Formats: sequence, C-alpha cells, structure tokens
Amino acid sequence: MSTLTTTDPRTGAATSTGIEPTSAAEVGALASAAAEAFRALRAYPRVWRAGLLRALADALEERRVELVETAMAETGLAEARLNTELTRSAFQFRLFADAVDEGGYLEAIIDHAASTPMGPGPDVRRMLVPIGPIAVFGSSNFPFAFSVVGGDTASALAAGNPVVIKAHSSHPLTSQRSFSALADAAAAYGAPAHTLGIVYGQAAGAALVADPAIAAVGFTGSLSTGRILQEIIDQRETPIPFFGELSSLNPLIVTPDAASARADAIADGLFTSFTGSAGQLCTKPGIAFLPAEAGGIVDAIVARAQDAAPQALLNSRILGAFDEIRERLIDDGKARSLVAPHTGADGFTLSPAVLEIDAADVTAAVAEEAFGPLIVIARYREVDEVRIALEAIPGSLTATIHGEASESDLVATLASEVQDLVGRIVYNGYPTGVRVSWGMHHGGPWPATNTQHTSVGISAIRRFLRPLAWQDAPEAVLPEELRDGAADVPRRVDGVLELAASA
Amino acid sequence: MSTLTTTDPRTGAATSTGIEPTSAAEVGALASAAAEAFRALRAYPRVWRAGLLRALADALEERRVELVETAMAETGLAEARLNTELTRSAFQFRLFADAVDEGGYLEAIIDHAASTPMGPGPDVRRMLVPIGPIAVFGSSNFPFAFSVVGGDTASALAAGNPVVIKAHSSHPLTSQRSFSALADAAAAYGAPAHTLGIVYGQAAGAALVADPAIAAVGFTGSLSTGRILQEIIDQRETPIPFFGELSSLNPLIVTPDAASARADAIADGLFTSFTGSAGQLCTKPGIAFLPAEAGGIVDAIVARAQDAAPQALLNSRILGAFDEIRERLIDDGKARSLVAPHTGADGFTLSPAVLEIDAADVTAAVAEEAFGPLIVIARYREVDEVRIALEAIPGSLTATIHGEASESDLVATLASEVQDLVGRIVYNGYPTGVRVSWGMHHGGPWPATNTQHTSVGISAIRRFLRPLAWQDAPEAVLPEELRDGAADVPRRVDGVLELAASA
Repeated sequence: MSTLTTTDPRTGAATSTGIEPTSAAEVGALASAAAEAFRALRAYPRVWRAGLLRALADALEERRVELVETAMAETGLAEARLNTELTRSAFQFRLFADAVDEGGYLEAIIDHAASTPMGPGPDVRRMLVPIGPIAVFGSSNFPFAFSVVGGDTASALAAGNPVVIKAHSSHPLTSQRSFSALADAAAAYGAPAHTLGIVYGQAAGAALVADPAIAAVGFTGSLSTGRILQEIIDQRETPIPFFGELSSLNPLIVTPDAASARADAIADGLFTSFTGSAGQLCTKPGIAFLPAEAGGIVDAIVARAQDAAPQALLNSRILGAFDEIRERLIDDGKARSLVAPHTGADGFTLSPAVLEIDAADVTAAVAEEAFGPLIVIARYREVDEVRIALEAIPGSLTATIHGEASESDLVATLASEVQDLVGRIVYNGYPTGVRVSWGMHHGGPWPATNTQHTSVGISAIRRFLRPLAWQDAPEAVLPEELRDGAADVPRRVDGVLELAASA
Repeated sequence: MSTLTTTDPRTGAATSTGIEPTSAAEVGALASAAAEAFRALRAYPRVWRAGLLRALADALEERRVELVETAMAETGLAEARLNTELTRSAFQFRLFADAVDEGGYLEAIIDHAASTPMGPGPDVRRMLVPIGPIAVFGSSNFPFAFSVVGGDTASALAAGNPVVIKAHSSHPLTSQRSFSALADAAAAYGAPAHTLGIVYGQAAGAALVADPAIAAVGFTGSLSTGRILQEIIDQRETPIPFFGELSSLNPLIVTPDAASARADAIADGLFTSFTGSAGQLCTKPGIAFLPAEAGGIVDAIVARAQDAAPQALLNSRILGAFDEIRERLIDDGKARSLVAPHTGADGFTLSPAVLEIDAADVTAAVAEEAFGPLIVIARYREVDEVRIALEAIPGSLTATIHGEASESDLVATLASEVQDLVGRIVYNGYPTGVRVSWGMHHGGPWPATNTQHTSVGISAIRRFLRPLAWQDAPEAVLPEELRDGAADVPRRVDGVLELAASA
C-alpha cells in the first residue's frame, strides 16, 4: 500500500508521511489488545487514573513546539490559535483528572435493604462503570481539541476505557506525533499496554467501527461521514452507541435595541466569530438575524470582509464543498451575495463571504451549514419573522441572542423560541470559543448531535459509562466507592445525597 | 375497522372490547396535541409536577379493584401478584415525585465566569431539560409496572414530558382503564390537555413512532418487535432515541459450597424464581449452572416441576413461541428434557419445563430466552467450564451468584466474569422481583437493552432529558434552579458539589 500524504494547505504542497495505512488484520489485533487493556485497567483505582490523565497533559505541553509546528503545516491554522488549542487540551486532561478524583461522575447510589409497600427490599448499590474500548474519530478543524488528544480521548480514558483513535487524513503527522506523546507518557506512567492505540486510513477506520471489541464510537465531523459510520454500526451483530457531533448552523439574533446600542461592537464581534479559524468551527454563527434598519452593522461587516486577506482552509475538499454550498445558498436559498470570496495565490485559501436574505424568505434551503468563512445575514422587519424563520433552522449546537435590558420580554420570548432547537444559548456574546468547564454543553438536537449527551465538559464522560448494580453483595466484591462507611465520593444513600467525607 | 378483542388466557374466551384501532389521522392529532402540551408543561415548576405524580398514584389505588380484576381477566396473572404490581406502580409514581422535589436529577451545574489558561471564560450554567413527547410501548407481562402506568410513563412525566402510550394488544381493557384513571386524575389536577394520550392497534403504534412530534420511544418487549420499531426510527427524517428492554437470559451460578450448604433453599428459591408468573418475567433465571454433584437440587426441582399445576400464559402467541424455542433448545442446543411441560384443559396454560445440559456443551444455541416456565440446568465439573460457557451467553439484565464465605476468591472470580455481561449482579438471591428504588438498575449489554440507561430506578428519568447550557444569561431567563443564591436543588458550583439549601 502507498503511504499517507500530508498537504500544507497554505501552499498546496503534498509530501509523503511514511505512514502506512493500517491493515484490517492490524486493526483487529489493536482492538483485541485494547480489550485486554480494558480488563487490565480495572485493577487500578481512580487516583491512579487521575495521575495518568495528568501525565498525558504534561506530555502534551512538553512537546508543544513540535506539535504546534506540525499542526500549522498540516492545517494552516495560526500558531497562536494552535497554542491555545494545545493548552486547552492539556487543561481538559487535568480537569478530567480532577473529576475522576472527585468521583461524582460515578453517580454512586446505595439503597440499604428496607421494607417497602411491596415487601422486603434487598440491598441495592449502583454506580457507573466503563464500557470497553472506545473508537475516537477526530475532526479536521481541531487537530488537538477534537482529535487524538481531544475531549473524546480524555473522557473515555477518564471513565476507565482504552481508546483506539482513527488518525484524521487531513493531519496524519499531527495525529502520529500527538499519539506518540500520549503513548510514551502512558507507558512511562506504567499504564497497561494498548491503553491507547491508533489506526491510519479510511478502511482501517471502517474496520475499527465494525470490530466486535469496540464498545462505542466518538465522532466529530460531517453529517455524511457520520451516516457512513452509523451504517457500519447498523450492520454489526452487536449495536453500539455512536456519539456524533455532526452539523450546526448556530443562529444568532440581534434585537432592535441591541442593534442600535451596540452596532460597532456587534459588527466587530460577529465578523471575528464567523471568520476566526477561517470559519471552520462547528459553533460558527452561520446565520445572523438583524433588524432591517441595522444597515450600519451590515455595512461594517461587508467592509471588513472586503478588506480581509484570504485564510488557509484545512484542505481542498473543504474548499470545494464551500463553493458548492455557497452557490446552493444563492441559487436554491435565494440569498443575495454581498461579498463574494476570493482565493489567494497559493494553497487552499479563501477570504470571507457575506450573503443576505430577507428573514421572511428564510427556508431550509438557506439554512445549510457552510463550513468556512461565510455568514448569511437575515434582515427582519418584525420579530415574528424571526420566529417563523427559526422553524426552518435545523437543530444546532448553539443559538445566540443579543438583547438589551430594555427588551427583557422580547429576550425571554426569543429564548423560549430557540430552547428546543439548541444545546446552548449564548447571551450578548458569540458561540465560538467553547469554554472547557464542568457545565459546558456541546451538543444539541439532531443534526447537531445524535444523542442526549455532550462532547465537551465533564459530563461528556457519561457517554462512555453504563450503570451496574450490586444486589446483596458481600463487601469484598463491592467497589471501594460502594462500601459502607466514609466514602471519598459523593453518594446518594437511602435517597439522601451525601458529600464525600473529605469534602 | 373492527374493534379490538380481549382474550381471557385462563379460558381462551375472546370478546370484543368495543375499542376501535386509532387511525393514522388520530395518531397525528394526538402527537401534535402532545407537542402543545409539552410547551404548556414548561410553565409549571417542579413542585407542581411532583404533585401531579402523586395525584396519579392516588388515582391508581382508588381504582385498584376494577384495574386488578380487569388485568386478571386479560393476563391470567394471579390477584396477589397484580395487587402487588399495582402497589409498585403507585409507589413508583410517588418515588419519582420525591425525586422531582429533590431535584438532583437536574444535574445542575454553575460555572461562574473565570479566568482560565485559555483566557477569560464566560459564565456557563447547565441543567437537564425535558426532550418532548415520549411514546411508551408497554409489555404483555407487566400490565401495570411496564405498561400504561409503568416506569416509562412515570419517568417521562417526571422529567416534564407528555406521554403517548401504545396500548398493549394483550390487555386492551386494562390499558384503557389504567389510562382513564391517569387521564382523569391529570385533568382534575389541572394538567394541560393531552399531557397523556393513548393509541390502540399495531398500525397506530407504528405511526406514533414515525410521527415527527415524538421525541423518544420507551419500549419493553421482544427483540423482534424492538427491531421493527428501530427500523421505523431509522426511516424518520429526524432520528430519535429508542430505549428498548428486549431480551435476557439471566444466568445463575451456584458454587460447590453453596450447593452443599443450601441445597433445599436453592432448589426452592430457583423453582419459585423461574416459575413465578409462569416464568414470564424478563429477569427470570433462564440458565442455572449447578455443580455436577448437586443432583439433589436437580431432583428437587424436577419433583416440584412434575407436581406443578399448569399456569396461564399471557396469550397464545407466547404459548406457541415457548413450544418452538423449547424444541430448538433440545434439537439445536442439545439439551436433555428432564420435565416436559403439559398444558391444561382450558386456555393457554402450561406447567414448568426443566432441561439439562453439561456445562461444557453450552453454546449460543442453548442460550436463548424461552419466555415462560422453563429453565436450563447446566451441570459443571470444573468452574472453568462455567467461565467458558458464559462466553456463549448473550448480554443480560442480571447474573446471580450463589456462593459461601468460604469461597470468596471463587465468588470474586465469577463476579469479574459476569461483570461485562450484565447490568445487575445478585448475590445469594434471585433476580426476579425487581425492587423500585433510587439505585436499582434494569438494563444491560445488548440484547438485554440497547442503551446505557435503565428503565427502573430514579435514573431512568435521564432517558427523557437532555442538557441545555446558558452562557452569560441574564437572571430573568435562567431557570430558578440555576440562579445565584440559595437553591432548593443540589448543584455543582465552580466544580464543587453543594447540597440543596433546605437539605
């Protein structure tokens, strides 16, 4: 087989990586080895696993210069952005370490034996346990945060599962070197062999999802690739959960008073949000509802877009899809082009595109995600036009509302309108720049995601756990966390939530 | 269309119910009305919803005599069993009311704005919110606990969702009268119209699952019907979660010392567990591993099975399937018949069947659930034979281990062997008789269930919720539970779990 190539999107130059696609036999061996690692990992307590996560964070930062340089050449993303993204990934490993130490994620419950209206009830103890080897498919647009060293890997490991990663074809060397940083650190820490694995190539990814040893799939990418992976899962003998972050339009609404009061700030903020990282963010605001009279904001965005230099896109496929979708938004969606993008002299580079439409004309045809630096500005005369237009918007990761204190009823109405449509509502800000914290949610109704879980924030760990109950179990077979006496995790005991003894 | 019939399994007598199958148009109208109710329900606080659940519990008990009598005639189950089951369903509504009052199920998290290694982080607040109208498909074998008034209905309502129930064809009158008890009580309590709905007939059930207004499906039933519903979901424009409790063999293992020390008690307990409710329980132990030398236990079970009078099965379809599967276990699975069942003079009645096999001969062909009073006794010479045989057992709701204190290493080894196979491990007891409590788990690896969630216990509510995050939200649009200051629910604030202020 030929080795994988890597392409610098800033120049279009392709070079061989020397990495060979993983064969089907190798994928099978890796998955089986991960299943062995899964059993071996059971022997280690939470505090050990928290230490492993911290060792991985340290390793990432130790190799920062090499990793960021590699990612720049493979993604065309800016150094500052990639540095922050690496910091975010290390921070994420450490935050999951804290969560593993804290133990609340186990959802430990003890129901002592008791008499009930139905007769004597047995002693029942329950907590969440890891589910098995997790296949992680990273995204093209986050070579660190949603890739080898990203949230799926961190949360799956935090839960106690081994991980087998499918390297993204758009950044194979970044994947390889990130993996090497993690794998070396895990080995040095004394983790079981094959706690981490990686495969290369599309066929290897498909084989991985089909492998009986794989217990779940985490995926951040396109709806079309997501559908292909789901079809592979549907053909498995044993179906497995598929956690997909797929597509998002992220509507943003500016109220009349906000448009008057903060025109310049909103023009600035919106431009930065839809063009940052060349608009290749799943939380990019793809459609913005502005009052008809807010021409100043539109003019300012248009001026900035016209002056903007082309930025590198991640790969030629994204550039091609961008052009296609932009044309569809105009031809089928009836949007008007205010600023047409232009490409640079080299590589896969593009300047921002701005489209406009009357809010009353918004249909599903103009409500398609264009991955790249494009925004559709929908101008409304009556707020009711926004309400109706929102019915054409597919489920999204986020919605954003800019409103003033003077319009609290309107803001509440808009909030109520978007609530069923999204996973996160942002007020007077921008949806890009997802904070990694305990409560952050990155998910939303289909097609934003395909589950009721999140891929960012500590509760992302829930995707890779399942409940297990012990009935009348002798103390010796109970996990430490479920034994009577002082516990180092919060628990619900006979219906009453108790903090950890050390808290 | 012809009206639905109801059949008394004790006599085989079929009579018309006067209930007409719900038309496709009526299903659509009911689902749309449920979507309206969903929006209306948002206006009510948790304490109101807890009161609704308690009103439903009261209504059930008020109509106990009528409901139990109706269920006896439609299911052939014994009065005492049905009385307990109704008590259990009322208890379950009240336990969910307590959980709604307590509010921990919201998983409320507040991350105040803070500086992070990646720069300033916004204020992020997150909790779980209801997902929309839930379609509930009850089971034939639990006319109360897993049907109209069962755990799916209780947990979906507790979460804040309307429910549309598909009445089970095996007990249409029980379904109708149970629904009437709930609907009347909900109306009297002042709940929005169509908070509860019901449809009749197979075509109506299919239309319900396909309806765009339905947000999730809860199902307890056969693997084959589960697959049909999943196929309908796969054809929807918007996929929805399907929570299926499908099939379970529930292996039970008796160690050598336990077999010696407690032969009589184990023979009694095992016989009662696999024949109770005519073996029509999803947690029935379908295969029991006994030491080769434990002939006394086998003899006692055989004697009791031979003496047992036929019990009514739920319907003729179950009787037919039972015969077929029993023949397959003998022909393909190579089991020997120790006691052949005999049918009674009237209706769909059957006495217990006992099969035997050497543990070394256990294959997937003998590891099939036979819904009804049948057990396969697998005799082992070496415990290692059990370990190998377990590899042929499909994912189950439960596994049970009978062991003595003298054998703690063996018990730990067996526990480790079954852990990945099941959702609940029972020690020195029996898996039937599922306690309703905070921590009970009723689920397990495929094909026991198809998700990482449970259908019994308070965490069953998680199936019908999704996370929503508010970023930098003005206090007025935040739910009460996420506002600063004293809270009446437990919350995680800046990473630290806090009990409710009133706790």
